[in-house]
Amino acid sequence: MNDMKYIFHPRSIAIVGATSDPLKIGYSYMTSILDLGFKGKLYPINPKRSEVLGIKAYPTLRDAPRPIDYAISNIPARQVPQMVEDCLAAGVKVLQLFTAGFSETGEDEGIRLEEEMVRIARKGVVRIIGPNCLGVYYPKIGLAFNAINMPKESGPVAFLSQSGGYANELTNIGGLRGIRFSKVVSYGNACDLNETDFLEYLAHDPDTEVIAAYIEGVKNGPGFVRALREATKRKPVVILKGGRTEAGTRAAASHTGALTGAVEVWDALCRQMGVLQVNNLDEMADLLLAFLHLPVPQGRNVCVIGLGGGVSVQAADDCNAAGLHVYPLPPEIRAELKKITPEAGTSIANPIDSILMFSPEEFYKTITITASCQQIDLLIVHMTLEFGISYTGGIELMQAVADNVIRAGKETGKPVAVVLRTAGALPIWQGFLELRERFHKAGFPVFPTIAGAAVALDRFVQYHQNRGGSE
Amino acid sequence: MNDMKYIFHPRSIAIVGATSDPLKIGYSYMTSILDLGFKGKLYPINPKRSEVLGIKAYPTLRDAPRPIDYAISNIPARQVPQMVEDCLAAGVKVLQLFTAGFSETGEDEGIRLEEEMVRIARKGVVRIIGPNCLGVYYPKIGLAFNAINMPKESGPVAFLSQSGGYANELTNIGGLRGIRFSKVVSYGNACDLNETDFLEYLAHDPDTEVIAAYIEGVKNGPGFVRALREATKRKPVVILKGGRTEAGTRAAASHTGALTGAVEVWDALCRQMGVLQVNNLDEMADLLLAFLHLPVPQGRNVCVIGLGGGVSVQAADDCNAAGLHVYPLPPEIRAELKKITPEAGTSIANPIDSILMFSPEEFYKTITITASCQQIDLLIVHMTLEFGISYTGGIELMQAVADNVIRAGKETGKPVAVVLRTAGALPIWQGFLELRERFHKAGFPVFPTIAGAAVALDRFVQYHQNRGGSE
Repeated sequence: MNDMKYIFHPRSIAIVGATSDPLKIGYSYMTSILDLGFKGKLYPINPKRSEVLGIKAYPTLRDAPRPIDYAISNIPARQVPQMVEDCLAAGVKVLQLFTAGFSETGEDEGIRLEEEMVRIARKGVVRIIGPNCLGVYYPKIGLAFNAINMPKESGPVAFLSQSGGYANELTNIGGLRGIRFSKVVSYGNACDLNETDFLEYLAHDPDTEVIAAYIEGVKNGPGFVRALREATKRKPVVILKGGRTEAGTRAAASHTGALTGAVEVWDALCRQMGVLQVNNLDEMADLLLAFLHLPVPQGRNVCVIGLGGGVSVQAADDCNAAGLHVYPLPPEIRAELKKITPEAGTSIANPIDSILMFSPEEFYKTITITASCQQIDLLIVHMTLEFGISYTGGIELMQAVADNVIRAGKETGKPVAVVLRTAGALPIWQGFLELRERFHKAGFPVFPTIAGAAVALDRFVQYHQNRGGSE
Repeated sequence: MNDMKYIFHPRSIAIVGATSDPLKIGYSYMTSILDLGFKGKLYPINPKRSEVLGIKAYPTLRDAPRPIDYAISNIPARQVPQMVEDCLAAGVKVLQLFTAGFSETGEDEGIRLEEEMVRIARKGVVRIIGPNCLGVYYPKIGLAFNAINMPKESGPVAFLSQSGGYANELTNIGGLRGIRFSKVVSYGNACDLNETDFLEYLAHDPDTEVIAAYIEGVKNGPGFVRALREATKRKPVVILKGGRTEAGTRAAASHTGALTGAVEVWDALCRQMGVLQVNNLDEMADLLLAFLHLPVPQGRNVCVIGLGGGVSVQAADDCNAAGLHVYPLPPEIRAELKKITPEAGTSIANPIDSILMFSPEEFYKTITITASCQQIDLLIVHMTLEFGISYTGGIELMQAVADNVIRAGKETGKPVAVVLRTAGALPIWQGFLELRERFHKAGFPVFPTIAGAAVALDRFVQYHQNRGGSE
């Protein structure tokens, strides 16, 4: 565990293969770390340059000033064994390797190179993350792997990913959807530090409240089971398993050389430990948003507010199918709602139409009245930008509606999830992003679909009910 | 069927409740029909105005010039019986009623009003669409119901919808995704013309090649079954059934007063007729895009090209789970691919990584080589804008890649589906829309997710295999 200190608190970072060519990955690492405001020393390593992006460069790790706690490298695989020797000579504590072409190729040369690299590393104290990985994003200290949509702010979600692509995607997509991260670790082939090491660390990490992971296969079965038991006792653990099918298993083998194992065994393990399994990254983001923002619901009686007609019929079907209960509102609540929805054609049974109540104040009252119903445990507010804009003439009224949803939601104390949709035409997109951001900043999760929201909410309720039973 | 002539070829349209107040639906109808370039006469009906949007208005239908083939109305329910009398007096052939507050309320007054309206209409020849509906969008002649993202161009897809919201959404979302429509009909309570009438018409409509429908319940079971049999014999029929669950059934009852019936009976009927059932509007759009654009595949052996790592593992899992077969490429094809992907860490087994081949020419070759494999029946090309942009520095290269995908796709003659994703940050969104449009214009379907594409492709293959067997 001591090695983790240097991963998560390096005093200095060397980037082997640093360059000012924007098409190279060595440039991405440099600029991302600079953008995120890393406070320690940064040493570009490049035998052909005296400086990179205005920072003094060194020909090899041996030539850079000490201490070098953390080295990031993307140089070709055949040059890696020599570079690991340099790491030992320079006292590097952690080496993070983007470089691919090792055991994941399934070819003798790649396997041999990876073994040689590990053998050399174990002569000293250098620990390896990767190879064939993006490495670590740790916004609190400014450690980063990519520059698009990477939030500067920290948050309570850790993501552990055997895939660099997914580490990148969840950071980007999740970042835009309001998820903020404690640490994201892409660990690739896991030739040294592996999922078990990171999971153990994250289970005890005070910055991390929820652990998410993308895992194809594990290196150390018994150790992983122990770490998973520890982690699930302390925090919600959400896992996306890659290689669930025969085709996926083959792809995983050629991706990180992972032996994915029998999916039935995996599923049984997850059930036993209370792991929240998801089917894709969107489902993962939905579930993380629920854990990030929502108070604990008392049950699964949901009230859906907004839109109407076929969209509400489908919303009811989606909620039911996910396991939630669309609770018919009792007469006294309907009587209250009736006072503010005098127009014909407005359904107030649940789902409640918003078709004729695009006044922000009526939205506020609808939520307040509905949430006052003792039997209702959670609320879903459902809006499309096109509907609002075409019937009201502008984004301003949608913003006022949003502010009233937020005000009512905060007052009720019950979980309020927002589903915000748009067909995505260019003139509407900016308004959509701003409206979504408005909800995030106020601490409300925004989901792209009712079906997705319903699945996430149902699992969120289930998780808390299971915990309640065992505590 | 003769009545349909006046629906789809009205010489004139009167809009009862036409107004220049942009927050009113009577304004939407006026502006949408003007925008779409309706060639016949347009008569605003409004007792308080002498003109609306620069067009001469008349106090009642009786005062407007003859003939009035088609009237659209949104005046309050209690005024409707008198207005239907006016329709008879003015010789109106078709009355389309946006107005709600009839049988769908479940209240005596609404039921009585709907019965009275129908009774009056049947004294003459006026046929009713609705009430409680958006009505008809028929771009070829400029009949429209809404103004946001409504394509001016026609296409081969008809959509029949019990829900106005969904008629609006599929038109908007589908329009942006490259779907073009022959006719869209939102028919609400179906007090007179119902799903069976429209389905019969569309089955024989030469403008319509694919029929999509959102249906909560049917008015005339035996007639509907006959119409469905006729339609499925001639064209693919894609149906989204609303009210599949107990909560959805309740919502449907309050939406259009529909009795949704047992879902098991419905499912059996659909299976028997070869109806393509979908679970939501996104799935519907995905399937329609496949029918719109793709040549008929010979089987379900798919090759996935693009991205890599965990994303490719998931892509393989998604394809497998949907029923497609991720066919391992034979050695001779891999040998060809090896020549253009010299870099380590690039998987060429299937899925094929594009991680190191963001040269447009290599993309072209990869598709051409893969498609030359006799056992491969269809291809999925998978791209994210962020990946392309971060590794290549710009949207221009993504556009060049797109052009090469299009060129290779056209040459192979095999179905090529494109999956194009983005996290959706504002600076990237415009590039995303343009890139997607580039594919649409060239006749390639673009899907938002691999899972969605895989499900649509599998059902597309299945449909053609079933037809092949029965022909």
